[in-house]
Amino acid sequence: MGLADIADLCFGGAEINDRPLAESIAALHARSRTLDHERLELIQPDVAAVETDILRLPDAGDLSLPALIDRLRAAIRVFREGHDLARVIVVNLISAGPEPEPSTQHETLAGLDALIASDRREFVTPSLCYAYAALREGCPYINFTPNPGTEFGAIAELATQTGLPFYGDDGKTGETLVKTALAPMFSARNLKVLSWEGVNLLGNADGRALDDPLNRQAKLRNKEQVLASILGYAPHAGVSINYVPSLGDWKTAWDLIHFQGFLDVPMTMQFTWQGCDSILAAPLVLDLVRLADFAQRRGEQGHMTQLACFFKHPLGVDEMALPRQLDMLQEYALHHVERG
Amino acid sequence: MGLADIADLCFGGAEINDRPLAESIAALHARSRTLDHERLELIQPDVAAVETDILRLPDAGDLSLPALIDRLRAAIRVFREGHDLARVIVVNLISAGPEPEPSTQHETLAGLDALIASDRREFVTPSLCYAYAALREGCPYINFTPNPGTEFGAIAELATQTGLPFYGDDGKTGETLVKTALAPMFSARNLKVLSWEGVNLLGNADGRALDDPLNRQAKLRNKEQVLASILGYAPHAGVSINYVPSLGDWKTAWDLIHFQGFLDVPMTMQFTWQGCDSILAAPLVLDLVRLADFAQRRGEQGHMTQLACFFKHPLGVDEMALPRQLDMLQEYALHHVERG
Amino acid sequence: MGLADIADLCFGGAEINDRPLAESIAALHARSRTLDHERLELIQPDVAAVETDILRLPDAGDLSLPALIDRLRAAIRVFREGHDLARVIVVNLISAGPEPEPSTQHETLAGLDALIASDRREFVTPSLCYAYAALREGCPYINFTPNPGTEFGAIAELATQTGLPFYGDDGKTGETLVKTALAPMFSARNLKVLSWEGVNLLGNADGRALDDPLNRQAKLRNKEQVLASILGYAPHAGVSINYVPSLGDWKTAWDLIHFQGFLDVPMTMQFTWQGCDSILAAPLVLDLVRLADFAQRRGEQGHMTQLACFFKHPLGVDEMALPRQLDMLQEYALHHVERG
Amino acid sequence: MGLADIADLCFGGAEINDRPLAESIAALHARSRTLDHERLELIQPDVAAVETDILRLPDAGDLSLPALIDRLRAAIRVFREGHDLARVIVVNLISAGPEPEPSTQHETLAGLDALIASDRREFVTPSLCYAYAALREGCPYINFTPNPGTEFGAIAELATQTGLPFYGDDGKTGETLVKTALAPMFSARNLKVLSWEGVNLLGNADGRALDDPLNRQAKLRNKEQVLASILGYAPHAGVSINYVPSLGDWKTAWDLIHFQGFLDVPMTMQFTWQGCDSILAAPLVLDLVRLADFAQRRGEQGHMTQLACFFKHPLGVDEMALPRQLDMLQEYALHHVERG
Ligand SMILES: NC(=O)c1ccc[n+]([C@@H]2O[C@H](COP(=O)([O-])OP(=O)(O)OC[C@H]3O[C@@H](n4cnc5c(N)ncnc54)[C@H](O)[C@@H]3O)[C@@H](O)[C@H]2O)c1
Ligand SMILES: NC(=O)c1ccc[n+]([C@@H]2O[C@H](COP(=O)([O-])OP(=O)(O)OC[C@H]3O[C@@H](n4cnc5c(N)ncnc54)[C@H](O)[C@@H]3O)[C@@H](O)[C@H]2O)c1
Ligand SMILES: NC(=O)c1ccc[n+]([C@@H]2O[C@H](COP(=O)([O-])OP(=O)(O)OC[C@H]3O[C@@H](n4cnc5c(N)ncnc54)[C@H](O)[C@@H]3O)[C@@H](O)[C@H]2O)c1
Ligand SMILES: NC(=O)c1ccc[n+]([C@@H]2O[C@H](COP(=O)([O-])OP(=O)(O)OC[C@H]3O[C@@H](n4cnc5c(N)ncnc54)[C@H](O)[C@@H]3O)[C@@H](O)[C@H]2O)c1
Ligand code: NA
Ligand code: NA
Repeated sequence: MGLADIADLCFGGAEINDRPLAESIAALHARSRTLDHERLELIQPDVAAVETDILRLPDAGDLSLPALIDRLRAAIRVFREGHDLARVIVVNLISAGPEPEPSTQHETLAGLDALIASDRREFVTPSLCYAYAALREGCPYINFTPNPGTEFGAIAELATQTGLPFYGDDGKTGETLVKTALAPMFSARNLKVLSWEGVNLLGNADGRALDDPLNRQAKLRNKEQVLASILGYAPHAGVSINYVPSLGDWKTAWDLIHFQGFLDVPMTMQFTWQGCDSILAAPLVLDLVRLADFAQRRGEQGHMTQLACFFKHPLGVDEMALPRQLDMLQEYALHHVERG
Repeated sequence: MGLADIADLCFGGAEINDRPLAESIAALHARSRTLDHERLELIQPDVAAVETDILRLPDAGDLSLPALIDRLRAAIRVFREGHDLARVIVVNLISAGPEPEPSTQHETLAGLDALIASDRREFVTPSLCYAYAALREGCPYINFTPNPGTEFGAIAELATQTGLPFYGDDGKTGETLVKTALAPMFSARNLKVLSWEGVNLLGNADGRALDDPLNRQAKLRNKEQVLASILGYAPHAGVSINYVPSLGDWKTAWDLIHFQGFLDVPMTMQFTWQGCDSILAAPLVLDLVRLADFAQRRGEQGHMTQLACFFKHPLGVDEMALPRQLDMLQEYALHHVERG
Repeated sequence: MGLADIADLCFGGAEINDRPLAESIAALHARSRTLDHERLELIQPDVAAVETDILRLPDAGDLSLPALIDRLRAAIRVFREGHDLARVIVVNLISAGPEPEPSTQHETLAGLDALIASDRREFVTPSLCYAYAALREGCPYINFTPNPGTEFGAIAELATQTGLPFYGDDGKTGETLVKTALAPMFSARNLKVLSWEGVNLLGNADGRALDDPLNRQAKLRNKEQVLASILGYAPHAGVSINYVPSLGDWKTAWDLIHFQGFLDVPMTMQFTWQGCDSILAAPLVLDLVRLADFAQRRGEQGHMTQLACFFKHPLGVDEMALPRQLDMLQEYALHHVERG
Repeated sequence: MGLADIADLCFGGAEINDRPLAESIAALHARSRTLDHERLELIQPDVAAVETDILRLPDAGDLSLPALIDRLRAAIRVFREGHDLARVIVVNLISAGPEPEPSTQHETLAGLDALIASDRREFVTPSLCYAYAALREGCPYINFTPNPGTEFGAIAELATQTGLPFYGDDGKTGETLVKTALAPMFSARNLKVLSWEGVNLLGNADGRALDDPLNRQAKLRNKEQVLASILGYAPHAGVSINYVPSLGDWKTAWDLIHFQGFLDVPMTMQFTWQGCDSILAAPLVLDLVRLADFAQRRGEQGHMTQLACFFKHPLGVDEMALPRQLDMLQEYALHHVERG
């Protein structure tokens, strides 16, 4: 297809936490035993390079909305020019946070502009600012977090105006990934799901953020809605997210599926998923960047629905079954391969 | 599509065990607590009716091959005429048994005829006799067992000669079903499967038969080959089948999947499947009968590859991924719906 | 030791639900497939007999405290006299409910008497009434529920005054049972438990009651406190109880134990418990009755600490390790066997 | 009690593999991600020191029995003298191997001496040579492997003659440890175990050795016999050991316990153990050395039954329940503490 080479990518970012990147990586290594020591040594020069391209922001709330957006836009320009980049893709990877208060002004660009201008932070979350700044600077935007915003009419309008592609929400890397791979099997075999209970234990900073009920609302909603869509009915389905510090980055999820077969005989299936969250997310982010870059090069705009398989809550797509979502990506790729 | 109504089906069979059907059902109920008492009472008249259509055979080996085949063919004719049936579908549901000794005579109908005529039972297993008798009597044939035979050239030749559809092998109802639903997810996410170990515990008569290494060879082969085909490489994969009498019909399977993500980080997933084997198999058999009946009505011949999703070892199909196999069935159905 | 024969026991009870006992049993059978049909038929006469000894009460709150206690005491007397019983043991098996509001009057019998007399229902829960009525009628009392009260000074004072034995709280039949069997192993091998997360799914009426956070406080406290006592330090320990109606009486618990071995290497163990709650509880209740009867015959008074192994929260006992608690029961039994 | 300080111990060994110790450790680290890099660096000087005290032996079978024993005895003397040690404890940690052929000569020291003198290697395994050499050199001997020999009359006679303590067999570090902690719970609650199936997956050199049915006989026997002894009856119990190279040192065991409660209701419990075998074994070996040293200082001889809790097959002890075995160790310790 002609996706960009990883070697041709250049990385930068924005952070409210002032811990140096190398330290964050070392801490992840020490707590979660993910990467081996040899690799850590190897990547040190790259990490140092990225560090120079990280915009250090004051904590959320310390800047007015217009000031924050200016800083973000300026940083994008500096990054683009400093490295003489053809395109910049913005991926939102910030912590899960509280949802913005509802407002009809979210539905038009004029409305959002007004909310920003009057610094109404209860309506305009940091994630919204990232989306806004990215699109205003001509960058495709991807929301890997559960934070809402990409669905607002204002964002769609801005993307149309700027002719840019964007997508989200909420990377699908673990329990929900498995759920959307397995649920179609129950459906195809006419095994009626009575209850599907999922428990997620994790101990990283994401887990700490999600430990606050305010922060986990959107994530839970994303996790819960997939089943009804695949099965065609809503089984009893609970999802819980528990913060278990000792697990570090090792997300451990247990799901119990109670289902009914022929002549109403009840049966069960259960699975335990022990995955390393960062390691599962990182390659998806790389591919999303390459696919968004590709879409921009092709002049594609609006929802990149071909990316549905990467998200728990794929914008503008009702299909939640993983196999069908993978078909969508493959069809997109084949289409472009054929067109050359 | 116009599949036959369950209510229009009529059931009969052949058995080497002389226990009355009602007793077998009662024993299954008592040991495995599958059906509830109310339902058992309800089906008693139907069970009694089927009983009169069961050919009671002496134990395998007591009849010469020609005599066995004559008995089977006669029973099919009696069944068809006695109930004035439009079509008879033969489904092989006998115990897993030892494989026939290899012979080039399996590859031609003339060869198979000669083996039968000279009563060479080491080359011609009971399952082969059922296939042969069915096709000779103009009946579509389905092999739900792991017993080999449907792949032999002789069977294909006989099906061509008689213009009949046939298919198999080995119903996909439990651990392998899940395996073929999950493996594509690992593949799609580029998560390299290092090892996939499966353990099957079961306590029914099938489990007792499979406890003999001679009887389980074909089943293990069917279970083991699915992964390499889906993944494109062969991970370390072990499958074991252990006879645990107390479990009765409750097949309990545990699978451990050891896989490697980005930067070679090893992770694991495991699942436990607790399903009732008969209850999982029965509706598949009903649908296979209806789909074979449909195929015969349409004049379709040879491998019914549209049924791949029902089998561990789908004849003439390389695709082992459940989602793709389900697509094949759906395409077949849509094709016929559109054609009317 | 000379425990009472099961055949010599006579059963009765009190209920606020007006569904006949036979119906409750039939519903349990239909929903949860526990008992087989044959056994249900067999026990029908016994069930009918017990039905005549069930005091049907108006819903909690409809009677004043003095009136409720009078009714309970009268019912005990009628039961004892009607069947000419040597002794009556009262076991509290009512639903988990909200905790009473704290009060210093709980600590003296005079205080409790005053709360009852002035009908202060916010301080005196139904469970307290059962304990009070039992002891006032000369009956040993056992609290199989998590409902607090047996710890109050007033109850101890009343038991002393009446010279009666009593015990509780909260039957240990599933996840906590396993926890207290396993935790000593970690301790003995110096494997440091980092986190022990437990998830309980259940679908019976107990599960429905515990779905209300007010009702599950005491149960969660009982479940959570066992670990620190056995390990000598408090690991991160979460317990959740989720109501999953389809599971009926089949409590399904999953526990993840994250522990650290030599040189701080982290490891995990997990278990899934699939037990039928009523079936696990019933034989304990029978043995508790027989052991309380025995204690009363021997003139033993106050806390029956020999029964610690039956409870999540054993009164007056710090030892939470199941093996040690079993030793306590065995020592008690041996002591009595030796004394004759 | 006055156990030796770890800091006062001095380590050496014998090996048939000629890979340097530092390399073996590095390989374990690379394959199994057990120790962190920092610790590995830290222990390098100690590892180098131990390396100089490793006797490098030709492969088993290349030396005659008398020659092997001479080499072992000489090495012990050199080690003792070179470091001016008060006592040397020999722990057998070699690979699981085939069992010796049975012989009545195993039962007397004269018999064993004769077998050695005539170089009858089919009767005298390497493990027997280690036991023999150790005791002849005045060293307490501990067999951490499943290799038989410590039970032979000849070894007991030699220990008596030399006045030395010894013990084994087969360290209890994983699945069997859990089994002996859990089984007493089922027994105490009168939950009848119908079947207990255990599956052990491991990928280290021990796993590779045990992959050979000849080598795993003794290990399987040790694993299987514990249940009947604890429960008082023999449930259906299967144990399998599968070599899964990718798991490295991470032993993953899954056990299914199918049990029957009150009124014969069948229930299940299952657990998965993910432990690092070396890390679980190492601290036991250290404590065994210290306890054997202590026993020798006290002049204790023969079976050190106080160490039963460390072994799958504790010599001369019928008690298999972990809690009782722990009591034995504690009683021994208390006895010595009290005696001063
Ligand atoms: N497998 C996965 O990792 C996965 C899957 C799906 C979704 N997500 C989502 O991705 C996001 C990142 O996950 P993570 O595990 O890397 O979390 P993390 O907590 O490790 O990283 C989030 C970072 O965002 C920074 N941050 C917070 N607010 C910010 C702001 N306003 N501006 C700039 N930086 C800000 C934090 O300081 C932190 O360093 C979360 O929202 C998470 O829910 C992750
Ligand atoms: N979920 C499932 O049940 C499932 C899934 C895949 C494959 N299968 C296969 O289906 C077959 C049936 O499974 P089951 O559980 O019903 O086994 P089963 O043992 O309960 O039934 C097999 C029956 O075949 C009879 N039989 C044996 N040889 C015969 C012969 N030569 N002629 C006539 N009858 C004969 C036996 O007496 C027995 O009654 C087995 O081969 C099994 O491996 C079953
Ligand atoms: N394995 C177990 O079943 C188990 C284990 C530990 C503790 N417990 C506790 O035992 C109790 C009973 O459990 P269950 O599963 O039988 O619950 P359940 O809901 O089936 O039965 C409780 C019964 O108590 C009745 N009730 C409620 N309030 C009452 C009152 N004031 N007076 C008289 N009757 C009243 C209800 O109508 C109901 O029929 C619960 O408190 C539960 O938490 C049960
Ligand atoms: N958790 C545990 O690790 C555990 C638990 C119980 C028992 N065991 C037993 O302990 C033993 C060691 O386990 P491991 O995992 O360290 O195995 P390993 O294969 O890593 O180590 C065994 C070593 O013994 C050496 N060896 C073999 N024969 C020898 C001989 N005749 N003389 C000298 N050296 C010889 C091998 O070269 C190898 O280096 C095995 O028998 C195992 O079954 C281990
Ligand atoms: Na994360
Ligand atoms: Na080992």
